[in-house]
Amino acid sequence: PLIQLLFLFPWLGSRLLRCWSHALYTYSQGKPFGHRGELGQAKRIVVKLGSAVVTRGDECGLALGRLASIVEQVAVLQNQGREMMIVTSGAVAFGKQRLRHEILLSQSVRQALHSGQNTLKDMSVPVLEARACAAAGQSGLMALYEAMFSQYSTCTAQILVTNLDFHDEQKRRNLNSTLQELLRMNIVPIINTNDAVVPPPEPNSDLQGVNVISIKDNDSLAARLAVEMRADLLIALSDVEGLYDSPPGTDDAKLIDTFYPGDQQSITFGTKSRVGIGGMEAKVKAALWALQGGTSVVIANGTNPKVTGHVITDIVDGKKVGTFFSEVKPAGPTVEQQAEMARNGGRSLAGLLSEQRGEIIYLLADLLTERKDEILAANKKDMDLAISTGCLSQALLKRLSLSPAKLNSLTIGLRQISVASQGSVGRVVRHTRVASGLELEQITMPIGVLLVIFESRPDCLLQVSALAIASGNGLLLKGGKEAVNTNTILHQLTQEALSVHGVRDAVQLVSTCEGVQDLCRLDKMIDLIIPRGSSQLVRDIQRATQGIPVLGHSEGICHIYVDAQASIDKVVKIVRDSKCDYPAACNAMETLLVHKDLLRSPLFDQIVDMLRVEGVKVHAGPRFASYLTFSPSEAKSLCTEYSDLQCCIEVVDGLQGAVEHIHKFGSSHTDVIVTEDKETAEQFLQQVDSACVFWNASSRFADGYRFGLGAEVGISTARIHARGPVGLEGLLTTKWVLRGNGHSVRDFSEQGGMEYLHEIIPIQQPLPEQRSTN
Amino acid sequence: PLIQLLFLFPWLGSRLLRCWSHALYTYSQGKPFGHRGELGQAKRIVVKLGSAVVTRGDECGLALGRLASIVEQVAVLQNQGREMMIVTSGAVAFGKQRLRHEILLSQSVRQALHSGQNTLKDMSVPVLEARACAAAGQSGLMALYEAMFSQYSTCTAQILVTNLDFHDEQKRRNLNSTLQELLRMNIVPIINTNDAVVPPPEPNSDLQGVNVISIKDNDSLAARLAVEMRADLLIALSDVEGLYDSPPGTDDAKLIDTFYPGDQQSITFGTKSRVGIGGMEAKVKAALWALQGGTSVVIANGTNPKVTGHVITDIVDGKKVGTFFSEVKPAGPTVEQQAEMARNGGRSLAGLLSEQRGEIIYLLADLLTERKDEILAANKKDMDLAISTGCLSQALLKRLSLSPAKLNSLTIGLRQISVASQGSVGRVVRHTRVASGLELEQITMPIGVLLVIFESRPDCLLQVSALAIASGNGLLLKGGKEAVNTNTILHQLTQEALSVHGVRDAVQLVSTCEGVQDLCRLDKMIDLIIPRGSSQLVRDIQRATQGIPVLGHSEGICHIYVDAQASIDKVVKIVRDSKCDYPAACNAMETLLVHKDLLRSPLFDQIVDMLRVEGVKVHAGPRFASYLTFSPSEAKSLCTEYSDLQCCIEVVDGLQGAVEHIHKFGSSHTDVIVTEDKETAEQFLQQVDSACVFWNASSRFADGYRFGLGAEVGISTARIHARGPVGLEGLLTTKWVLRGNGHSVRDFSEQGGMEYLHEIIPIQQPLPEQRSTN
Repeated sequence: PLIQLLFLFPWLGSRLLRCWSHALYTYSQGKPFGHRGELGQAKRIVVKLGSAVVTRGDECGLALGRLASIVEQVAVLQNQGREMMIVTSGAVAFGKQRLRHEILLSQSVRQALHSGQNTLKDMSVPVLEARACAAAGQSGLMALYEAMFSQYSTCTAQILVTNLDFHDEQKRRNLNSTLQELLRMNIVPIINTNDAVVPPPEPNSDLQGVNVISIKDNDSLAARLAVEMRADLLIALSDVEGLYDSPPGTDDAKLIDTFYPGDQQSITFGTKSRVGIGGMEAKVKAALWALQGGTSVVIANGTNPKVTGHVITDIVDGKKVGTFFSEVKPAGPTVEQQAEMARNGGRSLAGLLSEQRGEIIYLLADLLTERKDEILAANKKDMDLAISTGCLSQALLKRLSLSPAKLNSLTIGLRQISVASQGSVGRVVRHTRVASGLELEQITMPIGVLLVIFESRPDCLLQVSALAIASGNGLLLKGGKEAVNTNTILHQLTQEALSVHGVRDAVQLVSTCEGVQDLCRLDKMIDLIIPRGSSQLVRDIQRATQGIPVLGHSEGICHIYVDAQASIDKVVKIVRDSKCDYPAACNAMETLLVHKDLLRSPLFDQIVDMLRVEGVKVHAGPRFASYLTFSPSEAKSLCTEYSDLQCCIEVVDGLQGAVEHIHKFGSSHTDVIVTEDKETAEQFLQQVDSACVFWNASSRFADGYRFGLGAEVGISTARIHARGPVGLEGLLTTKWVLRGNGHSVRDFSEQGGMEYLHEIIPIQQPLPEQRSTN
Repeated sequence: PLIQLLFLFPWLGSRLLRCWSHALYTYSQGKPFGHRGELGQAKRIVVKLGSAVVTRGDECGLALGRLASIVEQVAVLQNQGREMMIVTSGAVAFGKQRLRHEILLSQSVRQALHSGQNTLKDMSVPVLEARACAAAGQSGLMALYEAMFSQYSTCTAQILVTNLDFHDEQKRRNLNSTLQELLRMNIVPIINTNDAVVPPPEPNSDLQGVNVISIKDNDSLAARLAVEMRADLLIALSDVEGLYDSPPGTDDAKLIDTFYPGDQQSITFGTKSRVGIGGMEAKVKAALWALQGGTSVVIANGTNPKVTGHVITDIVDGKKVGTFFSEVKPAGPTVEQQAEMARNGGRSLAGLLSEQRGEIIYLLADLLTERKDEILAANKKDMDLAISTGCLSQALLKRLSLSPAKLNSLTIGLRQISVASQGSVGRVVRHTRVASGLELEQITMPIGVLLVIFESRPDCLLQVSALAIASGNGLLLKGGKEAVNTNTILHQLTQEALSVHGVRDAVQLVSTCEGVQDLCRLDKMIDLIIPRGSSQLVRDIQRATQGIPVLGHSEGICHIYVDAQASIDKVVKIVRDSKCDYPAACNAMETLLVHKDLLRSPLFDQIVDMLRVEGVKVHAGPRFASYLTFSPSEAKSLCTEYSDLQCCIEVVDGLQGAVEHIHKFGSSHTDVIVTEDKETAEQFLQQVDSACVFWNASSRFADGYRFGLGAEVGISTARIHARGPVGLEGLLTTKWVLRGNGHSVRDFSEQGGMEYLHEIIPIQQPLPEQRSTN
């Protein structure tokens, strides 16, 4: 019958599932969580809603939208098997809204009765009394919560408390067992101060000590209750983002991500808080009190419309929202501090001589050989763990593993970068004599702080570090969990090499606990993000970043157009190489465009035969399909990146058709024409608007190494800064240096008598190799 | 007594105000609005909420958060003095949620009573019947609406209708007068089909004709009601973005911004709609029916959490949300079509010879002289209007006006750009012999489509057009309303010049009706946005864009550091020029940093004297203030851009202090050191991480013209692509051209036998002037 029931009522099934998953969460037993990543384990959670969250600011009604989305999140967490409690404000506001009409009505009646001079005096009497409002509002507020929670099949219960209930041992025990019982029955208790009867607030001096906290506002009530009920987590929502190190709005004010009780001295509280009664100082006191009592605390903004819909679930997911209170101060710096260190370290690095940067990279290469055993041992640890847990695919395992041979070729690569780095920073690219004695130089400079996000491949760490050092950039590295041991030792060696010139901090390895999404939000600290990994990774990062440029391509939909004048041999060779050499590469062919005249020719049969022999699955474009009696599966979309031994074939009328098709469905990565007609080829090369356009060559040549750029930073399909395969120059920007002798622009006005020369001066030291403009 | 009342109850005041503002909105009297900009005038608005908006998808409860924010928006519009009506779904969903418990309960009881084999059979009986659910849910749904609206002091009324109510003349008149009466009393009627008694849906063949529309779903009901009540606007919210030209999800599908009844043939409806009953075809039918009956219609997505909070108010504000149905087809192309035209026109432009682009610009310069009278007449129109309405400041008026002299200097400027444009596109910047017969070139290319947004200055249109033509870019121009006549004639002349080489469409003038925010969202059509105007404009645009890079600086907080070794004369001259030459410029000095040793020196007195004479108001930094007995007003923030005859003075310990201050509070625009000590100067130039760093020269030199870059595109404080003053090169990117002879990468593998050469080949034609790397 249970199965029958589940069949009839699928939602009941999910309910049962949730009950079973109860076991996933554990009480923290009076020991607060050490970091945000553990918050997901919290079983018993108190959510405190400040009046700013529940009400609509200057108007006094409730903020229904916010309230509803908070209820939704609480219900979701409750249905996951957690025990949720809500401490709410809002009864006064709700009551005010209700009483307003009554008062106005009674006013009007009174006014109608006495139309004499006394009216004005009479009218000033009824000031809305908060306790009356609370009494009038409490019932309505509860009805609203009940209606909302019932939409999620969740029951609620109302609890009104005063501080006496906590001071009297008997009452406290009663309250405790009532709440325990409610939680046991999967009911969400909604707690409020009994405002109608509550005595005036006591001085907050008794906030000290474990069992003495006055309930003068809902912050203290929530803290008190969380400790009493041994809750694992207290989420306090108000209208401030969290705790700042200085009063918000001042020049330096920074939101504190994690606050440790010992840091209390480093905070300056503003003289006037934005949050009314209690204010931030009281909130922090209550939070610290709860923390001491064994409950983790997060203070966050519940009024920001952009995040309201997921602020509570985000906190439980360990995301960086608001301020997290923790007793355990982690040994290392925070990621913000790391970014700051990378910025300063990078500036020192850029201030070194070009040779010194080269030395660092050379030394790093030496260390790879010297400390080979250490590195391989660390890598073995990662490999063993990955194999035993079986969480990595064969391809990823291969990428994770290091071998003496791999280390050797890495060493060679680093030495090449060391050589290539000579003269990259501070190189004069333009020198103008603006006027007599006024000399302008444009010189190359590092971009600033780079964030490189990579998956699995620990060799990537070394390459990227060497490139950043060569270009004088600060670097934040974010690797995958699966390579943590290897990455740690490699990063350690990098810092050893850097310390030779006192710039140890320029390269930072970010903890694996940091979420990529959180890193992508540090737009004031990071100047460029370079994702190295799957196109899915790149796409995710492009979506997550706000305001930080991303160097990379999310898609490589490369075309080969086979012209009517193509040579049979070249076509077969190029198509085979482009599709089959490495089908998962971004520069592999995805769509083959064939001139319509070729369709019934032996050339076309040869292409199709070759594809069949190589095991390439063919999808037919709509026009191609229409020519065939028995067509292969029709392509679902003409802009698919198969990244596999599959491709799409489509027929076009000729050059123009091919160009139009590429512009419409391509990703501006790499597109190829195969033809013997030079004129057609040149038209294709001119008209196709992609980063790489090739004539009679495999699309697989689109690669920094093959282009001779030395180490490759990545391939970009962006249209500004760098495009196509990007070398070291992609990590550089320029700055303008003007040296004068007291020149002012007024000197160049009619009265001034000076004149602009704008004489271009040839650059003194031409480099051994011509450099590109990227 | 009214005033006293207002004093006591400010919200009553706002209520009265809203009643007075009733007059602002007018009934459109059966004539639909011509474009979105007019929707703000709508007085009577019907909001239709599809079941996808009201409910939570697969689970059957209501989407409370969405509902609450929709109620809020309706209440806001109602309180503005508009007449709002809601057509809602959701009773069935609400009822299902309620009945579930009852059924489950009765199940359990039944199961307990019969524990025999018959149980399973019995259990399959109760399938939730939609009409029963509707009956059970209607009361709860209305109670919820009432509770929500009461939070905004707004009354609601319930109306249940069936299609018979529209067919029977008497019933229809009754319904009409009931609704009229409710609207008169400022009550929001909430209308639903009487699902409990409604007859089965009729065939939709009777959707044709004005008075015959069956109410088979809420779309038709809403349309019917809107026409019956002569509503000005019908907003139909569901879970689709709007109307697409092909079924959503296919390669080409584009959201239609404005749909005209005549366009119906150009739409392909999908075979299967995502929205269940009715589907998109039915929605469009209902919308067209309403439009024909005199009501404007917008179909939009009410379920996207990013916009739910403001979708209705956005539509009423005329923003581009969903699909707007209009009878009046505008003469010109849509902005999307313009972007497409600019893209194609730009590609043709880039395909011209460099000389041909130069010719176009030269011809444009000639046209300025030839058609001078026409231009000045158009400009006079703009000036007269601006003066008569008095809406422009004196400074803006000055910028708006054109004179023969101004036109003359513009002509000269254009001819300079014409010369400078030679060889900018298609220039080879790198040439590598990759292998024998495999040649790689990196050549300059236009970026693509630029959007330039400018205020007041019509001369900007010409400069920017010339720069775009010179660099082969497509261009969208968005000017201010105040210059519409001047801009129109200038754009016309530009297109005349372009037509000489058949590329008329490359430069497009966007209608003044288009919102800047809407333009900034066209991320698939625009490659770079260049705002030319106040820093406020730049900031607004940087905030509004998502995914399109913006070239510009939002702030110029420039510093001058006066070193202990500075020469008195140079300091006074440079500080005066930097602050007073043009205080509103972005490259004007905002903060003066003084070495602490100078504080009691005659040099410092001379600086202060000069500032006093020039009328510069001084703000003291905190450290400077601490040195003074009588200090000037303390600076509110050390990162203020005064843009006026004001500046901040702060004291620093020396070079390091100055550098740290600049890094902490500066905007990386332009920073200056004044010193006679070469070594200190070089350290400053090396360490300060700004786009422009100067030694003994005025900050005002940071400018494209003064740098000798020719025409200036703008000044960038970004760290990628272009930095500092940007010339023509800022509008260029590169592309890689590879010419082979059937090369494949396999040829270079161990079996292949070919080898990479990577020989750098000197570039054939050195240009008359060395070009920068930007």
